[in-house]
Amino acid sequence: MNQDRRDRLRDAAIGVLAEAGGRGLTHRAVDAAAGVPPGTAKNYFPTRDALLRAVAGRCLEQYRELAADTAGAGPGPTDRAGLASLLAGLLRNVAGPGRSRVLAYLELQTEAARRPWLAELLDPIGAGDFAAWEALLRTAGLPATPEHVRALTLALHGALPHLLAGAPATLAAAGLDDPDAFARRLLDAVCPAEPR
Amino acid sequence: MNQDRRDRLRDAAIGVLAEAGGRGLTHRAVDAAAGVPPGTAKNYFPTRDALLRAVAGRCLEQYRELAADTAGAGPGPTDRAGLASLLAGLLRNVAGPGRSRVLAYLELQTEAARRPWLAELLDPIGAGDFAAWEALLRTAGLPATPEHVRALTLALHGALPHLLAGAPATLAAAGLDDPDAFARRLLDAVCPAEPR
Repeated sequence: MNQDRRDRLRDAAIGVLAEAGGRGLTHRAVDAAAGVPPGTAKNYFPTRDALLRAVAGRCLEQYRELAADTAGAGPGPTDRAGLASLLAGLLRNVAGPGRSRVLAYLELQTEAARRPWLAELLDPIGAGDFAAWEALLRTAGLPATPEHVRALTLALHGALPHLLAGAPATLAAAGLDDPDAFARRLLDAVCPAEPR
Repeated sequence: MNQDRRDRLRDAAIGVLAEAGGRGLTHRAVDAAAGVPPGTAKNYFPTRDALLRAVAGRCLEQYRELAADTAGAGPGPTDRAGLASLLAGLLRNVAGPGRSRVLAYLELQTEAARRPWLAELLDPIGAGDFAAWEALLRTAGLPATPEHVRALTLALHGALPHLLAGAPATLAAAGLDDPDAFARRLLDAVCPAEPR
């Protein structure tokens, strides 16, 4: 098995899952998206579960690469304004260039409710996100008890489907129509600057 | 068209979407789940989009019935402990008897990222949830600025896929392995009782 071709197939499978949903994720569609001869995806990932497993593995790698890139760029912003700006950038990424990656992840997450082995594969992404936000809060000098970390991380997880669907009344009610203001206010709500 | 049969088909479709995912949502599967002759679902909802639209419509009705039941039971708990207990009950419902309803809703929400007409149909559910939590915070005498309401509502939305997938490290990191403590602490984090 050729590692480059395997990676190309896995990346293509993420794109297919994002663009066509679980229903569209077939070996044939992955072959077409990867531009490889028919039958190739089936050779590498013989069953549909193997295909899902491959997508989940690639999602986890992407998540770890993203975390390593962030760590490589330093420990993160050292104040509230910097952290708010990082957060706003993440939200813009979800609605923009990161859309396919995040949508594939949400598809997997929903499938995971029916497949315990998939939930187990994705577990490090979910748990890792709480640890990552704890570290970011600390570096920015904000309170980082489990309560602060959980409220912030879960609110960001809750924002993902709304950002992807883009329904106007929901976006407005969530305040997500303005990512900069949203990020600032979410940090203020979860980690207030001064005694209230 | 018979209204009772139509409702029975829509309820069956919610069950199919929850148990088998978007991939499993076919007219044939809905007929089987509803216990009606083959071809019936296709008669009522000729296309797959019509089937999705029917499920979304039924989800919205269920959401409104739930809201009406809650309103019928009075304006809601009048203190923090009561609201925490309502919240913990909701979380238990999601992981228990409400599982099928919530899983079908998450499937639709992911599909909505690819179908603007579906995002529009679901928009009142998303937006309505922020309004409902604002009213509940007010009735319980807790601060209910848009920031408080957004942080709380989004954190609850973010908890849904974790509760359904049940991955242990993620549940522990989120604090969702103990719904009562989770509800109390989330309210304390988002709407602190005293100046900190």
